[in-house]
Amino acid sequence: MFQSFDVTSTPQFGHERVTGLRASFDALGIDAFLVPRADEYQGEYVPACSERLAWLTGFTGSAGIALVTRSQAIVFVDGRYTTQLGEQVDGTVFAGDDLVNEPPHLWISNHGPKGLRLGIDPWIHTGAEVRRLEKALADVGGTLVFLPHNPLDRLWSDRPGEPLGAVTIQKIAEAGVLATEKIATIAQLLRDKSLSAVLITDPSSVAWIFNIRGSDVPHTPHPLARAIIRPDGKAELFLDKRKTNIEAEAYLAQICLQLPPSELTSRLAVVSKGGGRVLVDPELASYALTDLIRREGGEVVEGTDPARLPRARKNAAELNGSAAAHLQDGAAMVEFLHWLETQKPGSITEIVAVKKLEAVRAHVGQSMQNPLKDVSFDTISGAGEHAAIMHYRVTTDTDRMVKAGELFLVDSGAQYVNGTTDITRTVAVGSVPEEQKRFFTLVLKGMIAISTARFPVGTRGCDLDPLARIALWKAGGDYAHGTGHGVGSFLSVHEGPQRISRLSTQELLPGMILSNEPGYYRPGSFGIRIENLIYVRDAEDVDGGDMPMLGFETLTFCPIDRSLVIGELLTHEELNWLNDYHDRTRKALMPLIHAADARSWLENATLPISH
Amino acid sequence: MFQSFDVTSTPQFGHERVTGLRASFDALGIDAFLVPRADEYQGEYVPACSERLAWLTGFTGSAGIALVTRSQAIVFVDGRYTTQLGEQVDGTVFAGDDLVNEPPHLWISNHGPKGLRLGIDPWIHTGAEVRRLEKALADVGGTLVFLPHNPLDRLWSDRPGEPLGAVTIQKIAEAGVLATEKIATIAQLLRDKSLSAVLITDPSSVAWIFNIRGSDVPHTPHPLARAIIRPDGKAELFLDKRKTNIEAEAYLAQICLQLPPSELTSRLAVVSKGGGRVLVDPELASYALTDLIRREGGEVVEGTDPARLPRARKNAAELNGSAAAHLQDGAAMVEFLHWLETQKPGSITEIVAVKKLEAVRAHVGQSMQNPLKDVSFDTISGAGEHAAIMHYRVTTDTDRMVKAGELFLVDSGAQYVNGTTDITRTVAVGSVPEEQKRFFTLVLKGMIAISTARFPVGTRGCDLDPLARIALWKAGGDYAHGTGHGVGSFLSVHEGPQRISRLSTQELLPGMILSNEPGYYRPGSFGIRIENLIYVRDAEDVDGGDMPMLGFETLTFCPIDRSLVIGELLTHEELNWLNDYHDRTRKALMPLIHAADARSWLENATLPISH
Repeated sequence: MFQSFDVTSTPQFGHERVTGLRASFDALGIDAFLVPRADEYQGEYVPACSERLAWLTGFTGSAGIALVTRSQAIVFVDGRYTTQLGEQVDGTVFAGDDLVNEPPHLWISNHGPKGLRLGIDPWIHTGAEVRRLEKALADVGGTLVFLPHNPLDRLWSDRPGEPLGAVTIQKIAEAGVLATEKIATIAQLLRDKSLSAVLITDPSSVAWIFNIRGSDVPHTPHPLARAIIRPDGKAELFLDKRKTNIEAEAYLAQICLQLPPSELTSRLAVVSKGGGRVLVDPELASYALTDLIRREGGEVVEGTDPARLPRARKNAAELNGSAAAHLQDGAAMVEFLHWLETQKPGSITEIVAVKKLEAVRAHVGQSMQNPLKDVSFDTISGAGEHAAIMHYRVTTDTDRMVKAGELFLVDSGAQYVNGTTDITRTVAVGSVPEEQKRFFTLVLKGMIAISTARFPVGTRGCDLDPLARIALWKAGGDYAHGTGHGVGSFLSVHEGPQRISRLSTQELLPGMILSNEPGYYRPGSFGIRIENLIYVRDAEDVDGGDMPMLGFETLTFCPIDRSLVIGELLTHEELNWLNDYHDRTRKALMPLIHAADARSWLENATLPISH
Repeated sequence: MFQSFDVTSTPQFGHERVTGLRASFDALGIDAFLVPRADEYQGEYVPACSERLAWLTGFTGSAGIALVTRSQAIVFVDGRYTTQLGEQVDGTVFAGDDLVNEPPHLWISNHGPKGLRLGIDPWIHTGAEVRRLEKALADVGGTLVFLPHNPLDRLWSDRPGEPLGAVTIQKIAEAGVLATEKIATIAQLLRDKSLSAVLITDPSSVAWIFNIRGSDVPHTPHPLARAIIRPDGKAELFLDKRKTNIEAEAYLAQICLQLPPSELTSRLAVVSKGGGRVLVDPELASYALTDLIRREGGEVVEGTDPARLPRARKNAAELNGSAAAHLQDGAAMVEFLHWLETQKPGSITEIVAVKKLEAVRAHVGQSMQNPLKDVSFDTISGAGEHAAIMHYRVTTDTDRMVKAGELFLVDSGAQYVNGTTDITRTVAVGSVPEEQKRFFTLVLKGMIAISTARFPVGTRGCDLDPLARIALWKAGGDYAHGTGHGVGSFLSVHEGPQRISRLSTQELLPGMILSNEPGYYRPGSFGIRIENLIYVRDAEDVDGGDMPMLGFETLTFCPIDRSLVIGELLTHEELNWLNDYHDRTRKALMPLIHAADARSWLENATLPISH
């Protein structure tokens, strides 16, 4: 299994650990210390050795930050984690605060004690964060103290070692473009901008540039590594050789100099000396690194990671790989949904379903000789009122039966070498109330609106987001998350800069893979989400059109529960899309399904709905 | 007539006037001079005495700016005026440039001669503009020179005098809130923010605060005037007494101190002295005024004009007034459209139609004892290919017959004491090609999408804009303007901050009046726009909804040409809206229409279209 259902939170140690941390303040010359969820790579997933926030507080969510002062200990989380925070931390030790409306720097501005000396580990905060903290501390006459080591690590006696996950080569058939070409393009950009080097600190960018993948953190197959690329095309890759076998080292030796991570600082010093102009993404790089560049006499040129946008625009090989991965994943989903329908309501639990789905994906992967490498995130498996919890993770404590008369929401994804998947289906167990069908149909309308959208070049994610919501708005509903996030190619299932969301001013460009996942959630009652992955492409010309347009191609094929669709609520165009989608699904997946009962299930599940 | 069709451009003087301007450079110590369309009040319309850009260059568009250096003369205009610029200015004297992509400050950064001394008249540039210019000049080692007088005014021998349009009182029945209350609210805000005063420089804000209207500029009934309001509620209004009769002066004497405009500077000096903190909107106030505050020892506190948002959120009296004004205007439009239909195709011109429409509005105004005070802008009256020119203003040079087989677009509006109207209808003259009907129906779908939208509190103008476009996008079309602009109450027909446009991040708030005017334009061939005014209100609750929503109420009632609607392209919901709209239009307007033939026309024009 690539996921666990254990309750891993350890709130019982909160008091002791906070006390230990405070005891170190005097020696360090600080009055407070910040403990972010992030590690020095700023990724969504962190290795066990970097789970400092969970170790200190018990809170295991994917975003948060603790501020420990001499008298207070506050954990800042966003709205989706407020309930979880209450359950996971010792309320006598920690208070909660709102990460969105009052993040730590605003808390300091508003409530910080005069003259506060705030300690941070400069390796796990970005330059942009440091700027915000320094500004806030100036408001209260305080100072920021960069600590030479992280005081938590000294207290954490059984801290796991750094991960040494094996690195594999991403073959050209999947990557589409050689690493040498990618490095050459970046080198050209450095020459164009008269830069001395670029420091790449995002492990996903390193993985993409060098066409390698790793296994250092759960669910995102990038190796924790950094790189320096120079205008002459020379590249230094800071990647522990214990992660690379002979084959990988031989491959890397052709395109770069593979160096131990410990040599990063000395190599960065070399390019910085004498006014070296080093491109750094201030939202991604540790402050420790930008500070080093400046201390060595270099100039930090702030700019977006040069791999970020090219990585988001998948090439033909990546799109073809993704399409194939999605068909395989769809076949597994069909087998899972068919199995689900044959289970007696009230006989299986949410965890049983997750285990079954992962087993089916693994089995289909074996039989299609394209193994399941990981799940792309912990499966969200929520029945009834659990489906209304947007980021529900089922544990042995919360697990419950999937019962008749309720909706069951399963949001899951897989990592295959040719693509990353992410799919949500909400199905009826037995017969559900008409009201839930109505909202299912309204969510479906939003999902179809995005699927069928055509739009001019220059359209941004924020421009499309309302199209997915208007049907719900008219019914007095909405959903408190974006409509879609970017997805990587056998990389992170949450990838920027592309998004379909109210706040995304990133232009949508051909090749970008996005999720399309409107939802509706009635707390304590039921939840709905329908999600396909799609990618941006040039739209086919239409008669009478006078400008080129972009549109989406669907990657995900898997039946949408017809029993939840109220046909009369759909327009002809919407119903045509749904019937056509099911027709394409049947044709695409049937060749991959061999068991007679599953074939017959797919046949039925994709029958047209009449007007 | 409130509008003329004369060709007023005088390009023949361009050479002589530019030469005259350059001849003044040495004495002024400058190498270049900027001539904006704007005057010292920064409004959309300027009085004849401020038409400096037109006087110098011949260009009469509503937005533009000329830069005259020793060797070059460039007129910067936006895309909608590129053609007009070519027709109106002497190409041997003036070059054109793009106001959007390379406004003067960017031109200076990119091409400005080293050490450029740029002269400006500090009364006709805002503080925000000065900041941009100073930054750009720093790039080329240049300096900004604030001139003590505008050199053009010395050359312009027959410059008209300043306008002295009569001021009227906006009665409480129309204004809804007393001026004393508005002043008290602003005074409270000043106290809350520890400010010494606010300088109000937007004549529309002055008109709104003091409940007065004026007639200094075409089409926007505000008096050119400024005001200072203090935290104790004392208000000084700088308004020439030649504009106010005894009644108006008696009214104003109760609420403020009416002072000659020439006293503004000395009064502003009084509030500035000794560190006075004066609130100024940097996008609206002349640099000369903010500079004066600083020179007198005051602090310029930059912030939005405090009347801007309250003015946009109409109260019940204003909304009721607007609704009544729109019914009256709708009755005039019915009379006009009926007249139009009875004209033999090819027998009337665009100008004849404009004259008829204005005459009908004037006549209906008389008969309803609510006279037409002005048109709210020059009527756009375009037949055939002229309808594809978004800001077409018909002149005696361009006038043409309205012929059979083409679309005729009329975009017009009126000023009544109870409201400002703005309506566009596009009608078929005889039978038009199916393609044009198809695009008409697609534009209508967009217009209905906005009319029927419901949306959560917090929704911004940019969120709704795509809803009006998606039907066109799917057909390969779009329109190069926003979907809607704010509209004042017997004030400017283009009022901020509310807009429905890609760039508007202003939240839509109850009471805001907006236009809803999608379009489609095929250059050289045909053009379509359908426009109603609407306002934001709390939406009625719907069954099963779980959050309060906002929606729109329609103000404009006037038939939409049924002969151009292809019913099969509309969804049931859309067709229901159209039939209901026509039903409401018939019921609302029939009591105002007395001639039997017009009544019968209205009856037919509002018949339902069957599914």
